[in-house]
Amino acid sequence: MHTVIEAGREITSDPAALSALWRQKQLEYTWLRALMHRYEDFWVVTEAALRHAVHRLGLTASEAAIRRLMAAYWTRAGFHAVPAGLERLAQRPRASLSHGSPRMLEAVVASSGLGRHLQHVLSVDAVKTYKPSPAVYALGPRALGISVNELLFVSSNGWDVAGAKAFGYHVAWCNRAGAPEEELGARADLVVTRLDELPL
Amino acid sequence: MHTVIEAGREITSDPAALSALWRQKQLEYTWLRALMHRYEDFWVVTEAALRHAVHRLGLTASEAAIRRLMAAYWTRAGFHAVPAGLERLAQRPRASLSHGSPRMLEAVVASSGLGRHLQHVLSVDAVKTYKPSPAVYALGPRALGISVNELLFVSSNGWDVAGAKAFGYHVAWCNRAGAPEEELGARADLVVTRLDELPL
Repeated sequence: MHTVIEAGREITSDPAALSALWRQKQLEYTWLRALMHRYEDFWVVTEAALRHAVHRLGLTASEAAIRRLMAAYWTRAGFHAVPAGLERLAQRPRASLSHGSPRMLEAVVASSGLGRHLQHVLSVDAVKTYKPSPAVYALGPRALGISVNELLFVSSNGWDVAGAKAFGYHVAWCNRAGAPEEELGARADLVVTRLDELPL
Repeated sequence: MHTVIEAGREITSDPAALSALWRQKQLEYTWLRALMHRYEDFWVVTEAALRHAVHRLGLTASEAAIRRLMAAYWTRAGFHAVPAGLERLAQRPRASLSHGSPRMLEAVVASSGLGRHLQHVLSVDAVKTYKPSPAVYALGPRALGISVNELLFVSSNGWDVAGAKAFGYHVAWCNRAGAPEEELGARADLVVTRLDELPL
């Protein structure tokens, strides 16, 4: 996140506002495109969300600035603190299930060393839609060959928690920021603030 | 909108922030529930969004305050300026297509006199999902018995414009506030700032 804010300073005096609106539109566009049956991969959606956010805030950005912001987004992915949390769970089969396009995920896995902790790095791209569509959540049990009610799904996003719970997973919400629950009729089975608080 | 802001003063010194977050969560929850296949009607979703927004902003609201805010939302629906715009188009078949539950729409139609301008008052409730799902947009041509490519769809929401265009309507965006386009790969055929600018 910090690198996005640094890159944002090039075009605005309030890079945190740009970062927040960009993130909000990125999620909105995944949900809207999924509902429209007009899937585009997450890299395309992320850039579209950035361009809209720039216009909405009355900013201007050169193509070079757009490219720098997108590159900063890439490094923000936030997987870097995850391997230690995953190492603790080494005796269990583990998979990730992400909005990232296969190309984005390959790069993240290569740079983070995440690959050796995961049996599967799953992308929504396999089913051309986005969470919280049940078609996405179905990828987990299918890849692992384990029934959904024997799997623990961990997410930091309240809406993703609700989607996974509605699908049938046991769900842990990694609620680092102490956010309030999303009111979507499905609650996490447990709430942690860090991955290493997950039960073994 | 003003009445919501007035009602919001009871629980916050920044009722505009409450109103904006409430609206954002209301839309998010329709999209998320549609993707989760967990439809609840718009009144239920609207109240859930309000409760989340209150918590997120660190406010507290009594049940009586929640009821007053919901009542204020009801009166905000914004249909009151519409009849004149519809009267101009009286020689054409006209229908509305709304997220509102049938109960909400009945009350709005009764209080606004809108009913005599519309052949059909359609609700997403008939298909238990939300825009921009194609299942919702299909209600228009079906009710009117007119092919989608002979219909003009008018919306003030950029994302709804994109959804209707992707479905196959001719689309006019009533962009009162001069908002930037949503970057969803589908553009309005025409943009107006008021309903009485629509071509006859």
